Amino acid sequence: MALKTLSAKNAAALDQELMSTGAFSIDQLMELAGLSVSQAVFQLQPLNRGKRILVACGPGNNGGDGLVAARHLFHYGYQPTVYYPKQSKNELYHRLTKQLKDLKVPFTDNFQEAVQQTDHIVDAIFGFSFSGSVREPFPSVIAALADTKKPVLSVDAPSSWNIESGPPDSGPGKSFHPDALISLTAPKPLVKWFKGRHFIGGRFLSPEMAEKYDLDLPKYEGIDQIVEVEAVNE
Amino acid sequence: MALKTLSAKNAAALDQELMSTGAFSIDQLMELAGLSVSQAVFQLQPLNRGKRILVACGPGNNGGDGLVAARHLFHYGYQPTVYYPKQSKNELYHRLTKQLKDLKVPFTDNFQEAVQQTDHIVDAIFGFSFSGSVREPFPSVIAALADTKKPVLSVDAPSSWNIESGPPDSGPGKSFHPDALISLTAPKPLVKWFKGRHFIGGRFLSPEMAEKYDLDLPKYEGIDQIVEVEAVNE
Repeated sequence: MALKTLSAKNAAALDQELMSTGAFSIDQLMELAGLSVSQAVFQLQPLNRGKRILVACGPGNNGGDGLVAARHLFHYGYQPTVYYPKQSKNELYHRLTKQLKDLKVPFTDNFQEAVQQTDHIVDAIFGFSFSGSVREPFPSVIAALADTKKPVLSVDAPSSWNIESGPPDSGPGKSFHPDALISLTAPKPLVKWFKGRHFIGGRFLSPEMAEKYDLDLPKYEGIDQIVEVEAVNE
Repeated sequence: MALKTLSAKNAAALDQELMSTGAFSIDQLMELAGLSVSQAVFQLQPLNRGKRILVACGPGNNGGDGLVAARHLFHYGYQPTVYYPKQSKNELYHRLTKQLKDLKVPFTDNFQEAVQQTDHIVDAIFGFSFSGSVREPFPSVIAALADTKKPVLSVDAPSSWNIESGPPDSGPGKSFHPDALISLTAPKPLVKWFKGRHFIGGRFLSPEMAEKYDLDLPKYEGIDQIVEVEAVNE
């Protein structure tokens, strides 16, 4: 049974509601989202099968989730490298970046080279608020993600995919099919076009909010912050 | 081998440093601290051995860790009840309280009665900044914690214990010996007088900070946010 999906519009509304009447701070939500991402990496890429994780971060919240994930991955014993070419001026992102620098996590400017030197890639470039235009320097990054044989985990959306209608008709994202996806809070409609391993993360939704937005609360186990769900087959 | 301890003064300095040059927000640190506490409860009180958890929260940061833990416990499937008689006016605590109310987690004013109706108790009353004076209504709460046969997990310190010198010479805390303790970031000197199960939580310390404060980085496993360590024997 496939989980219900959350449209881009409703995902934005839910996020807004969590941070207003829901009384969550963005620091809290991003910490829990990034923690979920790090747990999915731990399942997909056990430490003894290669510790090098390249985390590609976009300019917005999806990138912030990636920065948090990179920090947790360091503490688990991985060797994260961060590609973060368009760093937000927002103080939260400054802080998340500083936390990584204090751990001596390397930042790279050369994505193509970094892809060669990693065991696993986290795509935290664009999330549910993606507007449809892939600006520089990201077209070549998406192309590298589409081309590489290295496993890729996308956060919330394969970057450059349309949240409602999936892979774009043209451009580098047309042939980008990541091995795994972690949907934060709830799957977005694009999961209909996704064939890989699918996780849900972000274990903080109240039953009331799930009902209001007509979502299923996934069946998390124990203390897990993620749960693997079956692929959607329409 | 016992882990090195962190004095009350150094614990305050480390906290300050994490939130200034370390660039962590208190929201982040409290989320991770509370998550650690919830994971210790999950180990101590498996869901199938009684789901009712009474979380006693003090007026400061220790209480905030308890509020976060209660939220995670709810999501794990426990039935937390919160005792929080001196609610801080600080907006962070307001928000953490609102998050629990949105989950319909009950708050109680009657600690003695709540102790009778629970399976496990979390003592998040006083932490490393405890000043030595137990003000109302907490003396009777500490007395109830000392008297109860229900298992108690203390957060950072058995409440009313002196951070450096352990159990007080008089008052209800003199005979308060909780079954378990979770030390956040590093054990405090009081662990010398503690005989129960001992966990360390707060997996965010950088190797550099650990070195600066002369602390051991505990050997966490996998994605765990806590690690059980042996009791200190001097």
